[in-house]
Amino acid sequence: MRPHSIRRLVILTEGQFGVHNAKTAIGVIRYGRDDVVAVLDSTIAGRNVSEWLGPRFDVPVVATLDEAIALGADALLIGIAPTGGRLPDAWRATISHALHAHLDVLSGLHTFLADDPEFSSAAATTGAEIVDYRRVPDRHQTANGRPHRSGAHVILTVGSDCAIGKMTVALELERAANEAGLRGAFVPTGQTGMMIAGWGISVDREISDFLAGTCEWLVEQGEEMGDWIFVEGQGSIDHPAYSPVTLGLIHGCTPHAMVLVHKVGLVEHDFEHITDASYPIKPLTELIPLHETIAGLVTPSRVVAVALNTSDIAADDEARRIIRETESETGLPTDDPVRFGPARLFGAIRSAVEEGVA
Amino acid sequence: MRPHSIRRLVILTEGQFGVHNAKTAIGVIRYGRDDVVAVLDSTIAGRNVSEWLGPRFDVPVVATLDEAIALGADALLIGIAPTGGRLPDAWRATISHALHAHLDVLSGLHTFLADDPEFSSAAATTGAEIVDYRRVPDRHQTANGRPHRSGAHVILTVGSDCAIGKMTVALELERAANEAGLRGAFVPTGQTGMMIAGWGISVDREISDFLAGTCEWLVEQGEEMGDWIFVEGQGSIDHPAYSPVTLGLIHGCTPHAMVLVHKVGLVEHDFEHITDASYPIKPLTELIPLHETIAGLVTPSRVVAVALNTSDIAADDEARRIIRETESETGLPTDDPVRFGPARLFGAIRSAVEEGVA
Repeated sequence: MRPHSIRRLVILTEGQFGVHNAKTAIGVIRYGRDDVVAVLDSTIAGRNVSEWLGPRFDVPVVATLDEAIALGADALLIGIAPTGGRLPDAWRATISHALHAHLDVLSGLHTFLADDPEFSSAAATTGAEIVDYRRVPDRHQTANGRPHRSGAHVILTVGSDCAIGKMTVALELERAANEAGLRGAFVPTGQTGMMIAGWGISVDREISDFLAGTCEWLVEQGEEMGDWIFVEGQGSIDHPAYSPVTLGLIHGCTPHAMVLVHKVGLVEHDFEHITDASYPIKPLTELIPLHETIAGLVTPSRVVAVALNTSDIAADDEARRIIRETESETGLPTDDPVRFGPARLFGAIRSAVEEGVA
Repeated sequence: MRPHSIRRLVILTEGQFGVHNAKTAIGVIRYGRDDVVAVLDSTIAGRNVSEWLGPRFDVPVVATLDEAIALGADALLIGIAPTGGRLPDAWRATISHALHAHLDVLSGLHTFLADDPEFSSAAATTGAEIVDYRRVPDRHQTANGRPHRSGAHVILTVGSDCAIGKMTVALELERAANEAGLRGAFVPTGQTGMMIAGWGISVDREISDFLAGTCEWLVEQGEEMGDWIFVEGQGSIDHPAYSPVTLGLIHGCTPHAMVLVHKVGLVEHDFEHITDASYPIKPLTELIPLHETIAGLVTPSRVVAVALNTSDIAADDEARRIIRETESETGLPTDDPVRFGPARLFGAIRSAVEEGVA
């Protein structure tokens, strides 16, 4: 995937904005390089993204694609990531309409829109582009034990669950590295990260045999871009559906250090299952040695910091109290890099990595 | 994939027979349901498979495809599984020749032969069939926490490395279950197992996001076929390239019990890497609790037996001594089910599972 000029996006979230399935929309609005001119969601039309994300994000929510086009949209971005990544039937008309109106369509679904005869023919007619971010290159290489470039520090975000902020933490830490005058690099491993950074591979789409090899290759590219490389983690090592992707990242990236991401208040895994079984989130004090043991099966690595997502805690004071408590429980530097800025956490990570603790 | 009538196979191993990359050939010769009329390998032409595998396997080795056709071959099976699963250029002519001579071509390579214009056009001309065992169904389902059928016992073979006999142990244990008057079932998860059993999915080809879901689905099918379900394991949990596939099997199958397979004498992982780093095989006493910890991240499971591959030990007495030593070290029932038959090991596994140790 090559960099593109700045687009003017309308982001489709129909019925999902403000719930976690719209994490693609939120990520692109918060961190993306494109302009976002509207969110398309008839269930909340007339409201504004700033009501959820704060005054920095003044984006109107509209009910129809035509309203977004009137606001100057030149691309429709699919803003949700449903389990299994399939295209809901209800969206077909919107996508067709967009392509016929010469809007590019950007999608991270497992269902490839460009392989759909109706969509590809509409795109061919108007010259609109369909970008399927989850389509992986036909590289087909297994891992080969590539060593890291000398001077590169590779840091992987891991987590207690999926959809809790591993990408966000990696982006914030990259920013902190750059603000500290170092060369930071963000390695996108999922469709939202790719939409934000303009490169990368959605590793959950990779053939299982080549997963670790692809992660290794992504790190190689990250090491060409910077000295402090933050790899976006995926899933969790104890997730009943997604753990293989998490392990491919750990064993394929062979990170010098890991940052453990956790969302305060989360008790159950984000897992759509057919029984009433419980899949509880494990204590951080269990997850830390677990990740070190599992990484160490291939290459030693340490968890050097905890990044808490305190977005469900209303008061800053309470969030700070929980951070202090976690720091004391785990013995690791802890912070919420979104809420309180990433500088302190990055500083602690940098010290740990440079001192060779990791 | 549907059952087919019995084929008369010539198995291509050119230059690889007798080394581990020919494990597909060996597996199909030992356990397959098709007749094997010849091995095609000009480097050992004139010899006989019985020299390697014993008098039960009287299969001539020939230098050319035409000799195999004269012996009645009606299908060419690609008998090796190279790293990365690519098609060596040197074999193109043989495959083309086979298709033009109306032989079916059976392949477990990652490179799909049916997608090759030259091969597909040759097949279309003569009506020969190309079977790419590694092509997975477009099912695209994540795991959903399906519970096991009541009365089903699901046992997964795991291992200290790849290519050491996890499939073979599962096949031997299935046979022992059937010989004990129970309903055994073998669940194939790789191309060789599929060639042998005539169904299954090569899970290392599955999209990473759907790996655990596909393993779950394979177990569901296995539970329709028998009460003692032996799932073929893949890779190893500490393999630098293939560990995600291993984890997908553990978390997707949620086995009641695991059997740890190890090849006596193995010291280094089977891993083609670009440095002089060492990737040692871990002690069984470390691997046993490790597998239980990792399985238990989703569903509790126990390693209930050790299956040793003693094929590199010449004397039966020495093999027996090593088995006793391992039994004492690990505290688990241990045997080589290929060398000494699977009845004793299956009996111990059955007791452990029925007593609810697992």
